[in-house]
Amino acid sequence: MKIGMVGLGRMGANMVRRLLRDGHECVVHDVSPDAVKQLESEGAIGAGSLAELVAKLEAPRTVWLMLPAAITGQIVDQVLELVEPGDAIVDGGNSSYRDDIDRAELTATRGVDYVDCGTSGGVWGLDRGYCLMIGGPDRAVDRLDPIFASLAPGVGDVARTPGRTGEPSPSEHGYLHCGPSGAGHFVKMVHNGIEYALMAAYAEGLNIIKNAGIGKHPQEIDAETAPLAAPKYYPFDQIDLGEVAEVWRRGSVVSSWLLDLTAEALHADPELEQFSGRVSDSGEGRWTSIAAIEEGVSAPLLTTALYARFGSRGSEVFADKIQSAQRKGFGGHIEKKA
Amino acid sequence: MKIGMVGLGRMGANMVRRLLRDGHECVVHDVSPDAVKQLESEGAIGAGSLAELVAKLEAPRTVWLMLPAAITGQIVDQVLELVEPGDAIVDGGNSSYRDDIDRAELTATRGVDYVDCGTSGGVWGLDRGYCLMIGGPDRAVDRLDPIFASLAPGVGDVARTPGRTGEPSPSEHGYLHCGPSGAGHFVKMVHNGIEYALMAAYAEGLNIIKNAGIGKHPQEIDAETAPLAAPKYYPFDQIDLGEVAEVWRRGSVVSSWLLDLTAEALHADPELEQFSGRVSDSGEGRWTSIAAIEEGVSAPLLTTALYARFGSRGSEVFADKIQSAQRKGFGGHIEKKA
Amino acid sequence: MKIGMVGLGRMGANMVRRLLRDGHECVVHDVSPDAVKQLESEGAIGAGSLAELVAKLEAPRTVWLMLPAAITGQIVDQVLELVEPGDAIVDGGNSSYRDDIDRAELTATRGVDYVDCGTSGGVWGLDRGYCLMIGGPDRAVDRLDPIFASLAPGVGDVARTPGRTGEPSPSEHGYLHCGPSGAGHFVKMVHNGIEYALMAAYAEGLNIIKNAGIGKHPQEIDAETAPLAAPKYYPFDQIDLGEVAEVWRRGSVVSSWLLDLTAEALHADPELEQFSGRVSDSGEGRWTSIAAIEEGVSAPLLTTALYARFGSRGSEVFADKIQSAQRKGFGGHIEKKA
Amino acid sequence: MKIGMVGLGRMGANMVRRLLRDGHECVVHDVSPDAVKQLESEGAIGAGSLAELVAKLEAPRTVWLMLPAAITGQIVDQVLELVEPGDAIVDGGNSSYRDDIDRAELTATRGVDYVDCGTSGGVWGLDRGYCLMIGGPDRAVDRLDPIFASLAPGVGDVARTPGRTGEPSPSEHGYLHCGPSGAGHFVKMVHNGIEYALMAAYAEGLNIIKNAGIGKHPQEIDAETAPLAAPKYYPFDQIDLGEVAEVWRRGSVVSSWLLDLTAEALHADPELEQFSGRVSDSGEGRWTSIAAIEEGVSAPLLTTALYARFGSRGSEVFADKIQSAQRKGFGGHIEKKA
Repeated sequence: MKIGMVGLGRMGANMVRRLLRDGHECVVHDVSPDAVKQLESEGAIGAGSLAELVAKLEAPRTVWLMLPAAITGQIVDQVLELVEPGDAIVDGGNSSYRDDIDRAELTATRGVDYVDCGTSGGVWGLDRGYCLMIGGPDRAVDRLDPIFASLAPGVGDVARTPGRTGEPSPSEHGYLHCGPSGAGHFVKMVHNGIEYALMAAYAEGLNIIKNAGIGKHPQEIDAETAPLAAPKYYPFDQIDLGEVAEVWRRGSVVSSWLLDLTAEALHADPELEQFSGRVSDSGEGRWTSIAAIEEGVSAPLLTTALYARFGSRGSEVFADKIQSAQRKGFGGHIEKKA
Repeated sequence: MKIGMVGLGRMGANMVRRLLRDGHECVVHDVSPDAVKQLESEGAIGAGSLAELVAKLEAPRTVWLMLPAAITGQIVDQVLELVEPGDAIVDGGNSSYRDDIDRAELTATRGVDYVDCGTSGGVWGLDRGYCLMIGGPDRAVDRLDPIFASLAPGVGDVARTPGRTGEPSPSEHGYLHCGPSGAGHFVKMVHNGIEYALMAAYAEGLNIIKNAGIGKHPQEIDAETAPLAAPKYYPFDQIDLGEVAEVWRRGSVVSSWLLDLTAEALHADPELEQFSGRVSDSGEGRWTSIAAIEEGVSAPLLTTALYARFGSRGSEVFADKIQSAQRKGFGGHIEKKA
Repeated sequence: MKIGMVGLGRMGANMVRRLLRDGHECVVHDVSPDAVKQLESEGAIGAGSLAELVAKLEAPRTVWLMLPAAITGQIVDQVLELVEPGDAIVDGGNSSYRDDIDRAELTATRGVDYVDCGTSGGVWGLDRGYCLMIGGPDRAVDRLDPIFASLAPGVGDVARTPGRTGEPSPSEHGYLHCGPSGAGHFVKMVHNGIEYALMAAYAEGLNIIKNAGIGKHPQEIDAETAPLAAPKYYPFDQIDLGEVAEVWRRGSVVSSWLLDLTAEALHADPELEQFSGRVSDSGEGRWTSIAAIEEGVSAPLLTTALYARFGSRGSEVFADKIQSAQRKGFGGHIEKKA
Repeated sequence: MKIGMVGLGRMGANMVRRLLRDGHECVVHDVSPDAVKQLESEGAIGAGSLAELVAKLEAPRTVWLMLPAAITGQIVDQVLELVEPGDAIVDGGNSSYRDDIDRAELTATRGVDYVDCGTSGGVWGLDRGYCLMIGGPDRAVDRLDPIFASLAPGVGDVARTPGRTGEPSPSEHGYLHCGPSGAGHFVKMVHNGIEYALMAAYAEGLNIIKNAGIGKHPQEIDAETAPLAAPKYYPFDQIDLGEVAEVWRRGSVVSSWLLDLTAEALHADPELEQFSGRVSDSGEGRWTSIAAIEEGVSAPLLTTALYARFGSRGSEVFADKIQSAQRKGFGGHIEKKA
């Protein structure tokens, strides 16, 4: 099947490659002519403009956008002027699901289908396939099934969920039509919210092990230091974190792909010296917590993981200063130096 | 190799079976004669008492305990009276690592090695193998290597961690000598602390998806209800959680064994009607948080996951009543009925 | 000075009374004619409609709204059609500061000043005075100073903050021009966010004391119950919480007005049997956490307090069921009954 | 009445002064002869040793200890050798209530009463009085009533709790016999746990206000920065935090003594430049959270406040590095510099 792909960054380019491998035709466009040329050399059909890209597709057309969230909106507007009723625009980037809902309302007035497709897979997707969470009208989603099937990982060697029988469902292939417009990015958003918490869970636990040798070090004795009641219970200053992550990969309840990556990182660089500990966040984690709040649903771990990232970048320093000031105020406590 | 196994519950019995399969000899004892008989019929050597069990082993002996934490201590005391210098006692149950440290001090005075072996695998261990986290003196741990290797999952079909070369390490087989006595149960304790948080992360996220249709339901309008600013952004009352969990199993960042189990549970019983939501905890999560506190290390997700379990059993009701009383006090607010 | 007051509920009516006491003139309107009549009998000037209210004021007019957030917007629109350049509209209710920013943009196009006035004081304000957090253009805020001064508590017998000299500032009288439109409700919003956390802090602490006698009760011994290592340290089943709250009111670091109310509630009803523990939230706490998230600022206590309120109303039950299902899945654990 | 006071640091010395003012006799001892001399010059009776101190008291004696928790135990042992059945030892320091329970068992074998007295008041206690939370046997606690009454703040000008009638109770004077040995320090421990959370609540809220002007600053646009959807809603870069804290002191729900101190600190040093934000903790907050965990009672705010202190001292850096490593692993994300 033939689609247009706009945006040939790391994600978009690899998705085109994966589609080409599976026999699809891709008309490709990017602000960088080099990016277009590169994919032309790999079998894609280049387009120098959005208009050219649309012109090289046949109705019902599919224009798939893999763009930074900040510019997706304006490109949707431009594409909408070029396509026809019955065509479809797919946003495969990291847009807010709210934008999808607004944009789907807009394109629907022109008879154009809007499909949001949350895409997980990162730099691994080309080989592993992409996990796709899809929202939008049946007409477009059903039509695009061959594309989704090619991008998704497929059944692979993941053990089948007990109780499932018959032909594997799309979800078992790694893609899912979650619901109406916005549903795809909503599910992807929550996916990332969960991801933050999973990451923090391993990080906290391993940090506890890393500090399990404090009983071997002399403690300062002063009014500003909480005493360690029984140092004999914290003698473990030699536990190899990379080995711990490795052993958990087999037979344990906490095995996961994130653990695999953690084991790899700790094996390569046991002290993680290349990192300073400033953890970025990219929007989805924030939106997940805001959704929880607006729904009136408690999500303490997901939000705590988000806040820990903020904290890693220094957001709490002024709050901490207030507490030092309060302690000085009621107890005459002087801040202890590092 | 030949060991004694005391405690033939779900875990102990299956571990014996796995050892027998691999050609080891097991002398087994349990308070239930039937449990002993059953394993005799499967090839084990029965023993009617601890003394008989010890008598049927040859020096250096290994007496492996798979007992409830509450009685492990007294059995250690009894076994210690029966064994000789050079022998080893292994605690493969869920003891606190502090007890290990204390008991190792005690047995060392008699020349007996104490090995703590945190064991993950649950009902799946017989087939999948058990992930083993081991603490104790080299002499005993090294000698028991064939036993650990048989119990552990082995390398299996888990992809090798990039950067690892040569003969697979014990950790790649699924067992690890973590450090001195207590280190095994310490690592297992943190493992469980992480497990609690991983579970809660999926649970919170899926709960947000489950409630994503609130915009479709009329909201009450009164001073006790926070208004939903834009109901149009919460229209998702048809997302199939079992399908969501399934699609995340392939190609996504959040894939894990716990997710596999979640997908299975939601497929079998989408509303989870067989459950009431009272989540037990069994000690390790508590000890993990206490270790974090005593180390002075922040572990907000791990502790929050623990507290959420307490809350699921009603621990907060009185605290909530206090807040209702405060709201009545300063604002005349009357509690709203369910 | 003369102002119009729209909305004569608990807050609005008492604010009129406080203004009348101080010699101001108030033109009052409400959808309930009885509410208008009642305040007429206390010295206010009644108005049967918004138009009549505006007609009874002289330029520059002030129309003060004390309305539910849900209808404030439409009344602002109506009032805006009735007033003239140089007049002011004051929103003293619990609107979102975002609405203030939007509405101030709108009224500014007509030369009308928009003032947002976060009002704390609840049922106590008539006698104690109202703490006022004000946003808006200087022209209107300065003009309304006599009104703010009358509504605010005044200096009273609160000890002066060391370092402050000279004539007491407005803030020392209990009102503050925080900044441009929206700043008043923003500060009030955060005030409520803090309030939630203060309330929860006392509630949690007192709940820990309430449960300090668990060591006296026999514990269940099974795999689903974490054992209490040393029951002797939890013998306190007779601590009187009302007395504890009372003793903290004098000389302690945790004394506060919320503590005063807590002490009163626990003295009157030690078991708080009139409450079920369902704690409402009314928007500001949610908006505070959303502001923290959008600012990238960590606010774990404020959000946790909010989530605890959600949890008190059952928002977590499905998440808890998922965890019970996971535990059954990996360990065969059966949910324990209450 | 006559008591012996051991430990003449900031707390002990001022308590002696407050007792002397009220006509009590104090025999005083400290490792520093100068500290003893100073108080002799103010009317106390000096003692060069514990033995001398005990010798200068008459049965039933009271030896009150105001010592660092780390050395209280050994001094109790020494005093116990010097006193007689019917005498009392009072620990007014910051000991763990568990130590009280153990020590009370020990002194009871000698007929000596052990009283634990949690003392709040810090540098302010000399003038404001000390809030006393007392545990121990009636015999000693009743006998010491005049001492407690002199140390406590007294009824003062704090408004009486509605519903209380008749002669003010000890709790209304600021001291309370909470229960048996340990109960005093238990209540004081929870008091401090609450204190941590109250402090953090104000700190978080004020920090949100401090960052409310981010909409005025250009945001970086890259994949590592979550975009701010609507900068217009964060224009507040001029709100004066000291003024905000001041205005909340009158008529608001969040007024408290900690707020008073916060207002003072922010007035004196608006940017709190003298502080770096490293917040110490001194044991009670840790013990409070441990008690919550062992009781199976949820205390998320109290523990989060504790963890925030750990985090302020860098405890999370390695955990943050793990997350940066994970992000690099699955998405090729490079850590963004500060």
